Order: sequence, then structure tokens, then C-alpha cells
Amino acid sequence: MAVSQPDLDAQGRDWVTAVRRGDVRRCARLITRIEARDETVTPIVQALYRQGGRSAVIGITGPPGAGKSTLVDKLIARYRARSQSVAVLAVDPASPFSGGAILGDRVRMARHNADDGVFIRSMSARGMLGGLARAAGDALCVLDAMGKDVILLETVGVGQSEIDIVRHALTVLIVQTPAGGDAVQAVKAGILEVGDVFALNKADAPGADRAVAALREAVEFRNDPHDANAWRPPIVQTQAPDGIGVDALLEALDGHLAHWRTHPEALRRRRLSQARSVLTDLVRDGLHRRHERGGESAARFAGMLDDLVDRRSDPHAAAARILTGLT
Amino acid sequence: MAVSQPDLDAQGRDWVTAVRRGDVRRCARLITRIEARDETVTPIVQALYRQGGRSAVIGITGPPGAGKSTLVDKLIARYRARSQSVAVLAVDPASPFSGGAILGDRVRMARHNADDGVFIRSMSARGMLGGLARAAGDALCVLDAMGKDVILLETVGVGQSEIDIVRHALTVLIVQTPAGGDAVQAVKAGILEVGDVFALNKADAPGADRAVAALREAVEFRNDPHDANAWRPPIVQTQAPDGIGVDALLEALDGHLAHWRTHPEALRRRRLSQARSVLTDLVRDGLHRRHERGGESAARFAGMLDDLVDRRSDPHAAAARILTGLT
Repeated sequence: MAVSQPDLDAQGRDWVTAVRRGDVRRCARLITRIEARDETVTPIVQALYRQGGRSAVIGITGPPGAGKSTLVDKLIARYRARSQSVAVLAVDPASPFSGGAILGDRVRMARHNADDGVFIRSMSARGMLGGLARAAGDALCVLDAMGKDVILLETVGVGQSEIDIVRHALTVLIVQTPAGGDAVQAVKAGILEVGDVFALNKADAPGADRAVAALREAVEFRNDPHDANAWRPPIVQTQAPDGIGVDALLEALDGHLAHWRTHPEALRRRRLSQARSVLTDLVRDGLHRRHERGGESAARFAGMLDDLVDRRSDPHAAAARILTGLT
Repeated sequence: MAVSQPDLDAQGRDWVTAVRRGDVRRCARLITRIEARDETVTPIVQALYRQGGRSAVIGITGPPGAGKSTLVDKLIARYRARSQSVAVLAVDPASPFSGGAILGDRVRMARHNADDGVFIRSMSARGMLGGLARAAGDALCVLDAMGKDVILLETVGVGQSEIDIVRHALTVLIVQTPAGGDAVQAVKAGILEVGDVFALNKADAPGADRAVAALREAVEFRNDPHDANAWRPPIVQTQAPDGIGVDALLEALDGHLAHWRTHPEALRRRRLSQARSVLTDLVRDGLHRRHERGGESAARFAGMLDDLVDRRSDPHAAAARILTGLT
């Protein structure tokens, strides 16, 4: 039941070729168009998706100030020392007010800019009003098609938007610090449930041991003790600026990749659940943007909303009708 | 293009009648079934929705500890003094760990329990894994059908889940305190954009004036200065335990209702955008639960996810296919 892909015109095929041979300028322009919600790039992204899926995508999230960017910087150096190519996609789901932080992070990572094996890109929610998870997913298709060995998908925060974004990754690294609010925020946001590896950064700060113990308890609570094959998320203590613990962290990330290789059924389940999340985001986005499209489909959707407001219909009936493609 | 409603059997009609005459025990049982995701109640909820829409629904959110429940308690007393009937739906999107807070809040509001004009109900995310916004929407249909004049929909927190929930309301009250993190969290979560009325509670704490000024600036930033008809969200300083500012807050909430009455086009736009949010939540929920259903539709969805994982299809093509009900 594969769905046929929209035909690519000669120009589209040219874009696909340019991305696949790793043309940095063309890739950057494509991501800019994705960020601007230019829908004419969608067929290109679709073609890239269908030919892709080889990069190891590592999602990284945690509260602002946890030291994610410094850790990412150190991880890049480690991957490069092993001659692996790396892309970084830094996504900021917050409002325009916090634009400064991401900019600062970009400058900090500038030392890798002269390195052809590293591609760094940031993306913000500015003016996006949702759809950031969609845009991040499309940008990942580009980075993956470039043939990068490792993609670090970094996002700031611990809310649902961040979870939606890191769900694109097959390995999720949660960065926490011993600071008081971190653990509570993480529990509230349900982010512990999506973490595959935990870094307790600023491990020299007071309360680190207690924070590790609390994390361990929360993570073990989540595991099924009877499932010997289940992945046990490691908790690694790091001090990013001095590089302390970064080797152990790399080992933990490698360990998770190795776990996927030796547990193909678990990997497939994860990929399926990921596909469902991505698809759900796209459907939601499609509904939110439907009215912008114009045409008969927009009019039909507007009519559906009118019927809801006037109580001639109800949300359950309308949802069932929208999902007729599945019934 | 109204969609016909599923036929209600005699038992279903009996439930509808019981809810509409305000049978408290039957209503509580119905909400329990909604919370348990018992889909057999959906036709009843659909019928209630189509006959409803009269209650003034006020959504209330803000960080934990901001004093929302105490404010709600005081507001209930004010509405009751005017002989308006009130329902409270307290929704906790957080993890099981925070169950205690809601329980405490319920106990605090127990003084209204002997009052027939007040119906108080809490609902938690425990074991729900999403779908809480859907369940809250269905529960609102029940409270609305009971004929309550005012429904206070209280939710704890400032994340996307809370925004999804308070979107069910036509008036959104955001409770903040002068405490350091509140404003930053609210800006990050985009919650300022959904607030119609703001309460700065604990207004006797240090930093209250600065917090009011920051809120005012953020709220005005959001307004179109050229639109003389736009609602200007009032910011009311309160000290909930002593009841200080509660009358002014009630006046602000009344003022927003009056604004809707004198601006029917704006109200319609709000209702349409609300209908779109509710519908989108239901579609998302429908996709997440599709595999639980069994049957041909679940198999078709599973096949779609297989095609995505095996890259025979891509997310954009799959989303378009799901939305064929609109094309």
C-alpha cells in the first residue's frame, strides 16, 4: 500500500542530487526554505526521506543553562576524532525573546565551522506558530541525505514541544543539572520517559549525588523489572567545560546504538512509534494550515468548523469524518 | 454538510435526560467513564454537545503554587452569592507523582460540597498518555449540559498540555505570582498569548509591581495598537487567602463576557479557532489510539506505519492520505 511519490521535476531532481552529494550551500538554502514553510520544497523532502534513514540521529534536550551546547561541542570533537561526519540541528521552540541564547550557542560552536565534516544549523520558532516539529523533521531529512554519520538534534527546554522534536531521534539524551528545579520540571513534562541516556552535567555542583540518585530512581521506576532485554538508561556525570565524563557519555551513546543493533524488534517498535508521532504532527499541522490553502478543501474544512460552532455537528463526528482516509 | 449523529439507544437517551436534569450521581459516573476512556459513552457526549453550549467556561491556569485553587474557591463564593450555579473541573496534566496537590485542592474546596449549586470534579492524566484534552472536552460537555451557569476549568502548569486544555474555554484566566520564574516560563510556553485576563496573585510579595509591569508590557506587545475593538487583557492584583482583589477579578471576568456579547464577530472567530483546536486534538488522539481498536482500520494504519519505517512511503504522503476526508 505504498503511496506513490509526487513527480519531481528536473529542478527538484537537481536539488536531490545536490543534497546527496553534500553541497553545503544548497542544503543550507533548502533548510531556509523549509523554515520559511515554503511548501514547494515538500516533494524534494519526500524524495530525500524515501532514500534516507542511515544517519544516527541523537536528540538532546534539557533546561536552558544545563550546558547542552558545551556538551554538544565536546561530542562533535570526539566524533570528528573518529572521522565521523557530524551535523548539528539546534531547534529553539521558545518565543522570539530567547533568540539570543541560540545565537550565543552558535558562536560558541564556531570553532567547528572551518571543518568540512561538521554542518551546524539553527532553527527557531519565530513566527512559526507550531509546525516546528514538522520543520525539524524535514530538515533532518536533508541532513540525513547529506550522508552525515551522526546528527545531533539539540533543543532547549523540557516541555511537550521539545519532546515532540526529540522524538525524531532514535537515541534521546537528556541533560540535567543538580539545580533544584530540573528534576521536578522533567518529571512534570514526562521527559524522563523519553530519555535513553542521561547526562548529569555540572556534576561538581552541590547536590550532584542526590540528583543522580533521584534520576536513577525515576528511571528505574519506568522500567519493567521482568524484561531482561530492556535498555537500562545510563546516567553519566559530566563537567562539560573541562571535558570530564564526555568519553563515558560517548560510550553510553554508542552503547545505545549497539543495543538497537542487537535488538532489532525493539528498534522496529521504536521506529513505528516514531513514525506515528511524526505522522500525527503532520496531520495536526495540515489541519492548522488547511484554511491558508484556499480552494475546495479549505472551504470544506471551514464548513466543518461552522457546523461545530453552530452545533449542527460535534467534534467526534467531525474527527471521524476527517479520518475517513483510514476507515 | 452537518454530519448525522450516531443513533442513541434507549439507555443512551436515558443518560442524556439524566444529565440534562442535573442528576449529580449520573453525571459523576459519566465523567468517570470518560476519564477511563470508555468509548461507549461517546454517542452520549455527542448528543450533549449538540444540545449544549450555554455555560460560560472560564479556563484557569498558572504554575503550581500560584494560588489558583484558593482563587477558584473565592470565585465560587462570589458566583454563588449572585445565585449562579458553578461547576469546577480541575485537570492535572502532570505525572502521577503530583497527585497529592490536586487531592489537597479538592479537600480545600470541600466547603462547597454541601452546596447543590456547586459541582466539583478533578481529573488526572494518570495512565492517560495523552488524550487528557479530549477527556476534558468531553467532561465539559457533561457539565455544560447540566445547565451550570459558570464552569471553572482549572489546570496546573504552563506548558502546551495546559494550553490545549484551557483552549476549551472562551475566557482564559492566567494566574501568575511575583516569583522569579513565572514570567519567563509563561513567555516560553506562549501562554501569554492565550490569556484574556491575568491575575497577579500574592500581590503583597516583593516584586509585585515589577511583575505587573512586565506582564503589561508582554500583553501589550501582543496587541494590535490600531485595532480599537481589540480586547485589552486586564491585569488584576490579588491576595487570594484574604480575598483582596477578588471582586476586581470577577469584574474583569464579567467584562470579558460582556466584550464577547458586544463583539459577536470576534466571538465567532474565537469559537471557530477553538473548534479547530478541539478537532485537531481529537484527530491526533484518534491516530494515537487507532492501533488499539483492531479491525481493518487498525490494520490499514499499521500498514501505513510499516511503509514509513521501510521508506516505501514518506510522512507527507501518508498525512495527505489520512486527510483524504477533506480533499
